[in-house]
Amino acid sequence: MNTLGRLLRLSTFGESHGPAMGGILDGLPAGVKIDMKSVTAMIDRRRTGRSLLTSQRRESDTPEILSGVTVDLITLGTPIGFIFRNTDARSGDYSELSRRYRPNHADFTYEAKYGIREPRGGGRASARETVNWVMGGALAAQWLNTLGISAEARLTQVGTVGYTDPFADIAADPLNGCLPYDDIVEEGMLEKVELARKDCDSVGARVSCVLRGVPPGLGDPVFGKLQSRLAQAMMSLNAVKGFEYGMGMKAASACGSESLDLFNQGFSPTPFATDLHGGALGGISTGMPIYFNLWFKPTPTISRPIPMPDSEGRITEVTATGRHDPCVAMRAPVIVEALALLTIGDLLLLDGHGK
Amino acid sequence: MNTLGRLLRLSTFGESHGPAMGGILDGLPAGVKIDMKSVTAMIDRRRTGRSLLTSQRRESDTPEILSGVTVDLITLGTPIGFIFRNTDARSGDYSELSRRYRPNHADFTYEAKYGIREPRGGGRASARETVNWVMGGALAAQWLNTLGISAEARLTQVGTVGYTDPFADIAADPLNGCLPYDDIVEEGMLEKVELARKDCDSVGARVSCVLRGVPPGLGDPVFGKLQSRLAQAMMSLNAVKGFEYGMGMKAASACGSESLDLFNQGFSPTPFATDLHGGALGGISTGMPIYFNLWFKPTPTISRPIPMPDSEGRITEVTATGRHDPCVAMRAPVIVEALALLTIGDLLLLDGHGK
Amino acid sequence: MNTLGRLLRLSTFGESHGPAMGGILDGLPAGVKIDMKSVTAMIDRRRTGRSLLTSQRRESDTPEILSGVTVDLITLGTPIGFIFRNTDARSGDYSELSRRYRPNHADFTYEAKYGIREPRGGGRASARETVNWVMGGALAAQWLNTLGISAEARLTQVGTVGYTDPFADIAADPLNGCLPYDDIVEEGMLEKVELARKDCDSVGARVSCVLRGVPPGLGDPVFGKLQSRLAQAMMSLNAVKGFEYGMGMKAASACGSESLDLFNQGFSPTPFATDLHGGALGGISTGMPIYFNLWFKPTPTISRPIPMPDSEGRITEVTATGRHDPCVAMRAPVIVEALALLTIGDLLLLDGHGK
Amino acid sequence: MNTLGRLLRLSTFGESHGPAMGGILDGLPAGVKIDMKSVTAMIDRRRTGRSLLTSQRRESDTPEILSGVTVDLITLGTPIGFIFRNTDARSGDYSELSRRYRPNHADFTYEAKYGIREPRGGGRASARETVNWVMGGALAAQWLNTLGISAEARLTQVGTVGYTDPFADIAADPLNGCLPYDDIVEEGMLEKVELARKDCDSVGARVSCVLRGVPPGLGDPVFGKLQSRLAQAMMSLNAVKGFEYGMGMKAASACGSESLDLFNQGFSPTPFATDLHGGALGGISTGMPIYFNLWFKPTPTISRPIPMPDSEGRITEVTATGRHDPCVAMRAPVIVEALALLTIGDLLLLDGHGK
Repeated sequence: MNTLGRLLRLSTFGESHGPAMGGILDGLPAGVKIDMKSVTAMIDRRRTGRSLLTSQRRESDTPEILSGVTVDLITLGTPIGFIFRNTDARSGDYSELSRRYRPNHADFTYEAKYGIREPRGGGRASARETVNWVMGGALAAQWLNTLGISAEARLTQVGTVGYTDPFADIAADPLNGCLPYDDIVEEGMLEKVELARKDCDSVGARVSCVLRGVPPGLGDPVFGKLQSRLAQAMMSLNAVKGFEYGMGMKAASACGSESLDLFNQGFSPTPFATDLHGGALGGISTGMPIYFNLWFKPTPTISRPIPMPDSEGRITEVTATGRHDPCVAMRAPVIVEALALLTIGDLLLLDGHGK
Repeated sequence: MNTLGRLLRLSTFGESHGPAMGGILDGLPAGVKIDMKSVTAMIDRRRTGRSLLTSQRRESDTPEILSGVTVDLITLGTPIGFIFRNTDARSGDYSELSRRYRPNHADFTYEAKYGIREPRGGGRASARETVNWVMGGALAAQWLNTLGISAEARLTQVGTVGYTDPFADIAADPLNGCLPYDDIVEEGMLEKVELARKDCDSVGARVSCVLRGVPPGLGDPVFGKLQSRLAQAMMSLNAVKGFEYGMGMKAASACGSESLDLFNQGFSPTPFATDLHGGALGGISTGMPIYFNLWFKPTPTISRPIPMPDSEGRITEVTATGRHDPCVAMRAPVIVEALALLTIGDLLLLDGHGK
Repeated sequence: MNTLGRLLRLSTFGESHGPAMGGILDGLPAGVKIDMKSVTAMIDRRRTGRSLLTSQRRESDTPEILSGVTVDLITLGTPIGFIFRNTDARSGDYSELSRRYRPNHADFTYEAKYGIREPRGGGRASARETVNWVMGGALAAQWLNTLGISAEARLTQVGTVGYTDPFADIAADPLNGCLPYDDIVEEGMLEKVELARKDCDSVGARVSCVLRGVPPGLGDPVFGKLQSRLAQAMMSLNAVKGFEYGMGMKAASACGSESLDLFNQGFSPTPFATDLHGGALGGISTGMPIYFNLWFKPTPTISRPIPMPDSEGRITEVTATGRHDPCVAMRAPVIVEALALLTIGDLLLLDGHGK
Repeated sequence: MNTLGRLLRLSTFGESHGPAMGGILDGLPAGVKIDMKSVTAMIDRRRTGRSLLTSQRRESDTPEILSGVTVDLITLGTPIGFIFRNTDARSGDYSELSRRYRPNHADFTYEAKYGIREPRGGGRASARETVNWVMGGALAAQWLNTLGISAEARLTQVGTVGYTDPFADIAADPLNGCLPYDDIVEEGMLEKVELARKDCDSVGARVSCVLRGVPPGLGDPVFGKLQSRLAQAMMSLNAVKGFEYGMGMKAASACGSESLDLFNQGFSPTPFATDLHGGALGGISTGMPIYFNLWFKPTPTISRPIPMPDSEGRITEVTATGRHDPCVAMRAPVIVEALALLTIGDLLLLDGHGK
């Protein structure tokens, strides 16, 4: 249950304020050269503490690779174990909360399930866990990039500010279309986060992701569809409340006659002229860009007095301390890319690639 | 890959125009009395041919149970094998299409993956497969109903007509809130389907589903979250382009201070006073109603001349024959319920229930 | 739990005296031509009723393939569903036994696990189930034979009569060595079965199997070793009490200096000059013949009065009726071949073959 | 593939001469108090270097637990990550061998599979990996012991010296029977190891294991039988060439009339009066002791000149250096116990225990 994937498998462990985070990436093909600079670059994109807009916790997030590679960092085909030491855990921040359930957090449900929980920093439910995912995705990227496969995720909405249709370009012109970029919108989104922080509040967001270079034929009918695997992976991400790919929710209002992607003559330069479908048909990749949106809820912890019960249900107002992002999605794009790459890597192996 | 679930496992087979559909439901606890009337009732809700609004294919859809039950239909704990004979397959309808790839269908991708495909009726990619899922869900329901767990799915939008916020009542009043029902909206949705049919077109839709009676504690961190499992199952359903639960996409525009579900004093009568979160926190059920929306694309087959390539990419206009629903989502609610029940049943077993 | 394999997956159902046995073979590559004659030949080798030495139950054992193939019996890559109708079930034979637990049968344990059991013919615990496995293996053979992979299993010991070292030839001369055949030993073994039958008793046996043509590189460290997968599959077979491969139990008495397989110069014509190791090192195939022994216990049902308890533990002597083989292993060789082929097929897919 | 178990899952990593060994135990129930003294005691039983009879490599083998427990070492229900630093790796020992394939080692097969291998100390194929298994088993034991379940494994044969029938007592008197102990036999076995060492040779062995306290009802028909799961786990252990449980290979020579375990009147004090079957019928535990034998081949590395090929197949005589046990089975009993406990723990969870 702490494992993602079937043949390319990431298994993880770690509590937010425990000694270390870590995991095992099993199934990565042998002979892949790991470029630690590019691995570190992905991890750094996720790291906290770079600005006031994200949590003030400062972890160096330096991975230690314990197995699965030669001294020259060539993969052996054996499982790659890695750990990240937790160094900036301030458990004192949570002492007051340790006897309380925070609304819209996992405190109540972990205790309902296990009869016990690690209150410091949310324990296993903390977004600190995602450092493991980025590590897994960064390792997978070393292999996938050699196949011409890449993922790009961007924040495309914060609160009420954002791009109306992030994939319009890509759907219309799959070869050259890009995710949108507009200075005013980008600033507007940052302002929304800053506003929430000042207001002791938090704010939701949308992240958009596009996968390029995925060959046709990945994904399995009936219960292993590409979009099923992607959705399963993405819904694992803390705070994600929804997933759509291709036309997504707009499909519900559309007519069939306006939703068709016509084929190109001779399937060239791409099989389809447009990409309204989002890269998968019948659960199998078409070779066109795969793209999807994720919606994130606002960080549930806000720095205001909130009524919280103890384990007997006696409610008192408590103001949460601890270090939190006003907008969890700020650091999410690289995590989304990591999950997307791990998912595609798994589908590649299931389809017999990787030899 | 044709198997859903880990401990409650539905494995299926069948091509739309082959001899039979069928499957195996493995893991259903022993000692459950199967009420064939209620099983049949679910299957009938899915069945085609009941009105002009759905496909004119007429299958009796009578399941034959081949194993796993006593002569009195008490489950033995062993796998339940079942089949549905295909009796109204008109393969001639597809002869013209058998050398063509239909846009937004799985023809192209199946051939990309397997180098071969069954062109008659879409083969394995046909929605005919879902009769197996409803059978599985109907069997699971026999057990889950004894635990007080139920699923209710409804069509809540067709094209541009529908309910604006299907879960407003349930979120605000989890104990008594219901899915909306309004004669004018219901008629409006049916008209949209009828209009699409007359217009030789098709139309998208949204289905909304609520699960009640699910106990707290189901779902597993980190990669086995309740919402991940639900999303994976739902994205398996043909034509589904998106999934959201709880506040869903609205969460992206919201502030934290307006998204909190406060606890009830003494956790009574329910742990939370409201249910904006949609029944799961940290990936684990809270005991509150679980609710989610699915968006369906319009049926890709429309009865108009469409440019279609042969396997060499030579494009000609072809008018698809065959029998198709103008709105695939019309028959989807009971399928959604079936998938939801199978998912919850699996999580129950994973949590040690079922003994 | 009623599924064997990870990528080539056989899921089965059926009680001995229920309406039908059946299963789903999922993952067989597309484009394989199924030769029904050769499938039927394998099933016939398993079939009962051909002589007095095996059970007198007469089933035609004609498989009905319900999906996964074209009308010309070319595989589509989709799951192959199949059933065998049970036609010669004489449930009356078991009425007396239905309230009794037979020693060394699964009656007691099924009831301990499920609180209910199907007493007729042993229900799901009956060796009738193995018709499904042979069907699965026969389908897999259609693919594996095209790759030059074959399995051969033989009865090599019945009671105290048999070949002392069935693999001596193969170990010494991997290219040309064969399983032993000697008229006197073969007759001796048959006599042992006949003797047991006349004596209202039963007798144990050993089955030896060799796999040829398996390429090097199959099997996965650490917990997916080739011998682990083989042993798991083989220990599924009713009445099997032990598994050994290569030198097997003889290895316990041996010295290292007499157990080494030296390499051939230039790895030619085979990597190793001898095959004491039995075809796998470190859990991975070496390209040499894979061979193993299985030990079968005597059929637990014998036609003598035996003290048997009812569910309250009150013991009375009962003479079992029903039709039983005096030596279950008589029909086992083809079942062993089927399980071996399914296991190798799965490992091939896991290693990226099958595209 | 580096994961054992379905619900209680041990995933491991580590090369013999890499920075660390380690793993994740996922699924251990919450609320179990870990007694580090008893964990360490199990690990110490496996440790090398305690006498001349085992390898001279000296590792402190001190586990570091990185997650999944409170500061008081109570399990949280979340995955337990752990590592063992490798401190006494002498990679120089293998420099000569790094370009050679050792007979009956995994050198050749790893290279056949991955095209690359870690030559130092056998890399991932080294028995050093089993320190992870003992850690997993020791953690599982903390839970299982509270349920009254225990495992005991012993060396019962070395070369040609040993006990003729290690389970005779237990089969005849399941309540009080024990594994045999005789000073002369024990000394004889040690002498065999010493003799092999002096002779620059190695020797095979047998390990016998008995599990007590396992409740009836564990194990799943058809492909999840208790004996299948045990065999799969045990065949993962380096050098194991065979597995038998209950009467094992003796069953092949026996008659049915002499193999029956009769029931006790009123199922008291145990369901069966004797335990020839070895604790499982129909793949499901009977509540009687479960017992099995494993046969180990001699250590393939011996300190004599051996012809070894390089990767081109050019053969030269090389004398292996490095530190090796003359009898790998010497340290195996505690590893066998660990694997047995992990397997039973998994079956308990699959059967709904653990809540």
